[in-house]
Amino acid sequence: MNHPLKTTPIVEWNAGAERRALDEVVSEEPLEIRVNGTPVSVTMRTPGDDLELAAGFLFTEGIIHGRDDLARTPAVRQGARRRCNLVDVRLRRGKTVDLDALRRHVFAASSCGICGKASIDAVRVRGTIPPSGDLRLDPETLVALPGALRPAQALFERTGGLHAAALFDSTAALLAVREDVGRHNAVDKIVGGALLAGRLPLGNHILFVSGRGGFEIVQKAVVAGIPVVVCISAPSSLAVELAREMDLTLVGFLRDRRFIVYSGERRINARRDSAAISTNLAG
Amino acid sequence: MNHPLKTTPIVEWNAGAERRALDEVVSEEPLEIRVNGTPVSVTMRTPGDDLELAAGFLFTEGIIHGRDDLARTPAVRQGARRRCNLVDVRLRRGKTVDLDALRRHVFAASSCGICGKASIDAVRVRGTIPPSGDLRLDPETLVALPGALRPAQALFERTGGLHAAALFDSTAALLAVREDVGRHNAVDKIVGGALLAGRLPLGNHILFVSGRGGFEIVQKAVVAGIPVVVCISAPSSLAVELAREMDLTLVGFLRDRRFIVYSGERRINARRDSAAISTNLAG
Repeated sequence: MNHPLKTTPIVEWNAGAERRALDEVVSEEPLEIRVNGTPVSVTMRTPGDDLELAAGFLFTEGIIHGRDDLARTPAVRQGARRRCNLVDVRLRRGKTVDLDALRRHVFAASSCGICGKASIDAVRVRGTIPPSGDLRLDPETLVALPGALRPAQALFERTGGLHAAALFDSTAALLAVREDVGRHNAVDKIVGGALLAGRLPLGNHILFVSGRGGFEIVQKAVVAGIPVVVCISAPSSLAVELAREMDLTLVGFLRDRRFIVYSGERRINARRDSAAISTNLAG
Repeated sequence: MNHPLKTTPIVEWNAGAERRALDEVVSEEPLEIRVNGTPVSVTMRTPGDDLELAAGFLFTEGIIHGRDDLARTPAVRQGARRRCNLVDVRLRRGKTVDLDALRRHVFAASSCGICGKASIDAVRVRGTIPPSGDLRLDPETLVALPGALRPAQALFERTGGLHAAALFDSTAALLAVREDVGRHNAVDKIVGGALLAGRLPLGNHILFVSGRGGFEIVQKAVVAGIPVVVCISAPSSLAVELAREMDLTLVGFLRDRRFIVYSGERRINARRDSAAISTNLAG
């Protein structure tokens, strides 16, 4: 059986004192994803929720377009041997997919090479769901997210070695949290879980990620129809550009009672707070 | 021209007060890597040191085996258009490479799927250089590394959005630092720079990475012959296993005057510190 934590002997050096102990490290193992028996990808991930990861990966890469593309039993075939890592995703009868799209995506270059604009266009043409425009969030809702997540981040507390992705509804209720050595895997597990549960698109939801928010994270949110992405740390330039092009709200540096809005501020209902500025200035 | 930072308008919300400003975000752009005109990979990276990145990627993926595989002018052909991102690596006349190895590497699965052991074996057969056994480090040398790096981490200070990789010699002198949105890119830039300068293998050096140390980071160090990898945060289980298999010293959680040794402790010369334990116990 795979387990998300492994115990290992370590030597701790602390200001000159040496101590031998057993410590926990987060498990990292390769997962091979197959579609109807054909290998399509190997990703290094933390074991657990492997079918969700595979479904989310195939969906956010544009290989499948929804739960209806899957067989009624989207078979997980795990190897018999210990520590073997394989998910074979079964499609519904008669459904064919374009596995070469994975390759073409990587090599979709113009004569002068690929560029940021081309990457954004590639997301746009991949059958994305435009994020809903209706969701409105109070700033106090956003600053409450890390506190809501903390009790659920069991592995991070114990190892410090994981990324987390979480799905919140518009009232900041925590719906799902996944932890993984790869941030993109954690997001794929969230999206794949929603896909398997028939909950896509996630038009009234917030995707929360520990750490940074790069292009890939925003891209996955766009494909899942999630209108708000919140990250604890910095977004990248291309993540900001993609969010603006796709009308997605991107929030970064959410710490204590502060955050920065990089895109889609219209979804953040901060009118009362503008009044607070005046008060501050007057005071 | 590509620049590692981009300026963007933002809205900062801070405890009820709203402020509009211009802020810097770290640049993320796709880079297409070609070999003699054939596209082999697209990676999202922070622009800068693109030839080093390409050379390091091709070397750590086992496509090229040293500087001698490259043409005397390992041509960088950048697109004429702004923000286009392409490096075409030219091989020396008569040299052929197995580009399909990149694909086979990904799909090198057994009948029950790929596993951690297979991943380690794949590193072993990829013509790696065994790390030198001679390097010995004082614990005080290790705890001095973050301080030596800080003045050189210009971009991180300004954006908070970057990973750093640094190369130190055995006296903790900083030889190179590279920052990137992707930690694996930062390491590829370090290794590629050493390759282009004819300095591989790096048998008496320390690779330092901000954040976590996963399998991929240790794998790149092994291929470059680097015997010591130090990370600020947690390593993964497979990184620890690979380090032990390859006799590489892996240090994690290097903070203040404390660190944890996961593998290869024989290179850490802590005898005086064991004496310190006795003193502590006696005191």
